[in-house]
Amino acid sequence: MKEDLLQRAGAVLRAVRKRRPLVHQLTNYVTVNDCANATLAIGASPIMADDIAEAADIAALASAVVLNIGTLNTRTVESMLAAGKAANARGIPVVLDPVGAGASPLRNRTVERLLKEIRFAAIRGNLSEIRFVAGAQAAAKGVDVSDADRESGPQAEREAAARAAERFGCVAAVTGAVDAVSDGKRAVFLRNGSPLMAGVTGTGCMCSALVASFCGAADGDFFAAAAGGTLSMGIAGELAAQAAGSRGLGSFHAALIDGIGKITPQVLAEKAKIDEA
Amino acid sequence: MKEDLLQRAGAVLRAVRKRRPLVHQLTNYVTVNDCANATLAIGASPIMADDIAEAADIAALASAVVLNIGTLNTRTVESMLAAGKAANARGIPVVLDPVGAGASPLRNRTVERLLKEIRFAAIRGNLSEIRFVAGAQAAAKGVDVSDADRESGPQAEREAAARAAERFGCVAAVTGAVDAVSDGKRAVFLRNGSPLMAGVTGTGCMCSALVASFCGAADGDFFAAAAGGTLSMGIAGELAAQAAGSRGLGSFHAALIDGIGKITPQVLAEKAKIDEA
Amino acid sequence: MKEDLLQRAGAVLRAVRKRRPLVHQLTNYVTVNDCANATLAIGASPIMADDIAEAADIAALASAVVLNIGTLNTRTVESMLAAGKAANARGIPVVLDPVGAGASPLRNRTVERLLKEIRFAAIRGNLSEIRFVAGAQAAAKGVDVSDADRESGPQAEREAAARAAERFGCVAAVTGAVDAVSDGKRAVFLRNGSPLMAGVTGTGCMCSALVASFCGAADGDFFAAAAGGTLSMGIAGELAAQAAGSRGLGSFHAALIDGIGKITPQVLAEKAKIDEA
Repeated sequence: MKEDLLQRAGAVLRAVRKRRPLVHQLTNYVTVNDCANATLAIGASPIMADDIAEAADIAALASAVVLNIGTLNTRTVESMLAAGKAANARGIPVVLDPVGAGASPLRNRTVERLLKEIRFAAIRGNLSEIRFVAGAQAAAKGVDVSDADRESGPQAEREAAARAAERFGCVAAVTGAVDAVSDGKRAVFLRNGSPLMAGVTGTGCMCSALVASFCGAADGDFFAAAAGGTLSMGIAGELAAQAAGSRGLGSFHAALIDGIGKITPQVLAEKAKIDEA
Repeated sequence: MKEDLLQRAGAVLRAVRKRRPLVHQLTNYVTVNDCANATLAIGASPIMADDIAEAADIAALASAVVLNIGTLNTRTVESMLAAGKAANARGIPVVLDPVGAGASPLRNRTVERLLKEIRFAAIRGNLSEIRFVAGAQAAAKGVDVSDADRESGPQAEREAAARAAERFGCVAAVTGAVDAVSDGKRAVFLRNGSPLMAGVTGTGCMCSALVASFCGAADGDFFAAAAGGTLSMGIAGELAAQAAGSRGLGSFHAALIDGIGKITPQVLAEKAKIDEA
Repeated sequence: MKEDLLQRAGAVLRAVRKRRPLVHQLTNYVTVNDCANATLAIGASPIMADDIAEAADIAALASAVVLNIGTLNTRTVESMLAAGKAANARGIPVVLDPVGAGASPLRNRTVERLLKEIRFAAIRGNLSEIRFVAGAQAAAKGVDVSDADRESGPQAEREAAARAAERFGCVAAVTGAVDAVSDGKRAVFLRNGSPLMAGVTGTGCMCSALVASFCGAADGDFFAAAAGGTLSMGIAGELAAQAAGSRGLGSFHAALIDGIGKITPQVLAEKAKIDEA
């Protein structure tokens, strides 16, 4: 499966660079600039538009939509629903980043509502977030993975991804020290990345933007898209750590975007560390 | 005209560094940090304030105002109108960046309303956006220039700039591979820049912030201000490509701000590539 | 006092790195990414959440709360009050960054209301802002310190800090070319920093995020926390100027975050320039 998956992810990346899919992102104001630049660096075209008066119009133009609740507010939840439904009506893939799910009743209610009213192609989060999505007991405190969940290990990630994927008929990716991606039937571990990534805000959000960019050119192969986007982020982390890690977290941050721009099908093939899970 | 224009742009830049004009920016949350840092790097002082309860008060203190609809929302449109009118009432120049004009009915209606109710000193956008402003058929899809418009060439840019300028009695700048600036009577092509700029979000927004910074110290010479701001951005792109382009888009992004800080009247005079259009 | 203060600040920093306090930040959209990354770089965990429906819930989970009015809007003021009161009720320290106080009636009313309804552990601002807080005549124009105030010198800073601290029973830090920190009884001057810091937006906001990170692990020693956070920012500025200042403001900006990550109790002890005030 490993070789096949890598070939498919590479083919999707080639399509991203060729078609330049428009990726509509309703996202948070903390990491939005990085998400836009990650989207450009992988070869797609970002647009951020969250007013209820245009969210559905813009989603209808897009090749993929991201709903990221990082700085959730009650105004933009309605826009997320409108954009998600407009995308669903046209078969445009929608990606959910349930930032901080489990950390407040508002986040929990909102994630539940989004999952009830919108069909997602992919969901990406840390273990605490995806455990919440999967219906399991999560130990969220804030937007970073909880200490308890951080110690849970890859098998817990695989299990949460598989349960979330099965429950919502989509692909789920749990990112952390190791990443797990599942469509409910198959699952892989992706072992790329750098510990420095946890020291920069938004590496998860950027990963979701990459997953959506891949989904926007995947012709329905969302397993390859989620794996390809997640691998791209992890490998970019490795390239950035090598290029700038010793200078510190600010330089590493800039180098992450450098790294994303350097991902090609060949780089994926050479650097990806995939295991069947 | 070329030498005269460069001298005037250089004189305005000298005034920016001396007077440190306050530039009030009602702008989008994607590129706002870059806009503030570009404003500081050129020597002006940014303030971002978009609440209706203070937009007019802050505009009244400012030397220039930017209205950028990148992440347009219905709340801040009212603030833009209030700030624009307060500026108009005091003769403070207002700059429009009609991000994504043509891409949704909300954007179109909003741009039309802003253009109807506010007098602008300068308007800056890509060809799709300025075509929309000029009343021509634009082919917008998202916030990047459309493929059709990207292939149109400098003459189409000059024409759109001239029509927009004439229609609204202001200066218009179309930025792209080549930039065209017109006041409806005269027009110039500016041939500075780097293809890498299209790979970083917000280079257009930053250019508008620079145009506004120049307008805030231009004593009414908005043609020199628009040319000077646009040249500064293009030359900064060249300096950044030289300094960091080979490292990637994240490093290039940081180097863009480095470059803006290095623009002086002498650098403008040495590096500007201006043609009469 | 100097040696004692440095030892206490170093001990708080050690506690930050060990406990990783969650710092809830209701802040502006201009510098929010830098604030989150500064918080991570010093070793704390940021969360930005400003909807009224979760602000109190998130504050209750946090170890410190920051209220920053940089892009003040009437919606989030209510969230700031809710978060501040929830924190007060639980003894969680709250830090105020009164960005632009004095520059508009809305800002003035808001700062007065926040100061009336919430108890702060620390307040950090430039001289114009802290003069406003202290009840003195400020000469604010925009969000940068006014020219008149910039020329006032360290004694004016000490006096404003002492008056604000005394009036509100908290610690106050005035940052500028020299920084002054006071709890109303004692005061110190901190002479670290770089003139380049005024050329990057958000160095004040980042300093407030660091002060809050320290407060979140200070066990009530807010004088040491405010001094430690302010020293960390100043020393990071020196490290960044050395590492990247010659390349320009964009590179310096990235290097600031590099610098924050390099602050240790030992670096504080070696580099801090503290004078009794």
